[in-house]
Amino acid sequence: MSFLAHIVTCNTYRAENFRPLRLGATRIGWVRHDNAALLQLFPAVFAVSERDVALIAGGGFDALSTAVDGVIEALVAEGRIDKWRHEDFAVAPRWGQPPLFKLDRGAVGFFGIRSYGVHLNGIRRDADALKLWVGRRAGDKKVAPNKLDNMVAGGIGYGHGLVETLIKEAGEEAALPPALTAHAVPVGALTYRMANTAGMREDVLFVFDLDIPADFTPRNTDGEIAEFHLMPVRDIVARVRDSDDFKFNVNLVIIDFALRNGLITPDEPDYLAIVTGLRQPFD
Amino acid sequence: MSFLAHIVTCNTYRAENFRPLRLGATRIGWVRHDNAALLQLFPAVFAVSERDVALIAGGGFDALSTAVDGVIEALVAEGRIDKWRHEDFAVAPRWGQPPLFKLDRGAVGFFGIRSYGVHLNGIRRDADALKLWVGRRAGDKKVAPNKLDNMVAGGIGYGHGLVETLIKEAGEEAALPPALTAHAVPVGALTYRMANTAGMREDVLFVFDLDIPADFTPRNTDGEIAEFHLMPVRDIVARVRDSDDFKFNVNLVIIDFALRNGLITPDEPDYLAIVTGLRQPFD
Repeated sequence: MSFLAHIVTCNTYRAENFRPLRLGATRIGWVRHDNAALLQLFPAVFAVSERDVALIAGGGFDALSTAVDGVIEALVAEGRIDKWRHEDFAVAPRWGQPPLFKLDRGAVGFFGIRSYGVHLNGIRRDADALKLWVGRRAGDKKVAPNKLDNMVAGGIGYGHGLVETLIKEAGEEAALPPALTAHAVPVGALTYRMANTAGMREDVLFVFDLDIPADFTPRNTDGEIAEFHLMPVRDIVARVRDSDDFKFNVNLVIIDFALRNGLITPDEPDYLAIVTGLRQPFD
Repeated sequence: MSFLAHIVTCNTYRAENFRPLRLGATRIGWVRHDNAALLQLFPAVFAVSERDVALIAGGGFDALSTAVDGVIEALVAEGRIDKWRHEDFAVAPRWGQPPLFKLDRGAVGFFGIRSYGVHLNGIRRDADALKLWVGRRAGDKKVAPNKLDNMVAGGIGYGHGLVETLIKEAGEEAALPPALTAHAVPVGALTYRMANTAGMREDVLFVFDLDIPADFTPRNTDGEIAEFHLMPVRDIVARVRDSDDFKFNVNLVIIDFALRNGLITPDEPDYLAIVTGLRQPFD
């Protein structure tokens, strides 16, 4: 492994294997060619051409959401979409704009809808070393079971704000009180496009840093994190470099933390590829 | 102005106006088409085709450097390159690799050679506010006279290391003692490709943060900075957003500092375009 290998792992999307999903003139997703072929079975909802897939169901937010839900139901029944996650994500032209419709999280990959998440670095500035609280994901998680994770992380669901999501997830995953989480500092965002079995993951990770008091020990309340460990950042960075112990996209968050804190330095041969690779431009 | 406008200003390079400059199989620069036409006058050094420009002078580091110097001399004489800067920059396949040859800084833009610089955020964590030391460039600077600048900034010349350059520039520009500059923390790099009158500027800025003690006041020793001001970061960030008072690429360094410190937040409508725009991938 290497720092750069983790970035490569998260950026396996190749344009030639996908075609744009459009609503009117707006591109809203990326559909893998074999998935596009499946959508030809739903001509009242999607118009599929060699060039693109158009969502033509018509109507506003509710009508579009219902129409797409119907297609998802059929695709789940046929095993082409893994399962309902019973959690809605918003589909918008871009970050901060009103959503056009919503769809189940389980279908985000099939349609290549951009998703947004929050990741929190829980920092301890102890006298002996700079440390981070690291969680180990539960064994029954659908994505990346047993992998190491940030202290807090989660997707931003439809209708939920960014800071609201951070505070909610921090409470559920680590029992962080809202008054403490409110001091988290937004320190940037990471982006990647990853081809996966479902289709692709076009993901934005909003990163926050939070100093955790020495007398606070995280405690999971929702069953998603099996255990927490307080680890020196130098050990974490070495483990990211040398292993796949961390969840695929959490490696990016740790690498970014290391870069911002001088723990990966310009004498690293891949430095520029790492720095530029963490934030792939979207169109 | 806006944050994003500064990023757009620094990324005006368009591939269709340039052709690659190659040494063997390695691309080492980008030559604007009209500049490529001029290089046809030096067939012993450059082979110019519609597709690219090849440096064919042959020989090793010294022979290549001498051959290119001869062309620069002629181009300066004809006014096609502004002037000799009497400071050499290295030409290498990529960062950290041994240089293939060196050329005068004044010719870097004509040939579209990637250049590397160091920028230092001089930080004061006063009780009332987070502040930065800001320099005003001298009125006789060739590039961006009278503009506001980082506390320390400079290009990395041939044969000089990155930290060595930072320490040297910090001493010359701000009278920072080496023992203090040695505590500067590398916090990432910014990249941009800017079309300019000479040709283009493919630039890497290595960014450092340094806490400046309250009893230290910077003092310029080389005539490049006219005066220093200690300014609250909030005021600096607003001034970057609303004006062109800062040197074009220093805006990027300030925007990056603001992002890393939660002073530009995800509720900024252009947040993702800003975050991804600061580090354009090179090929």
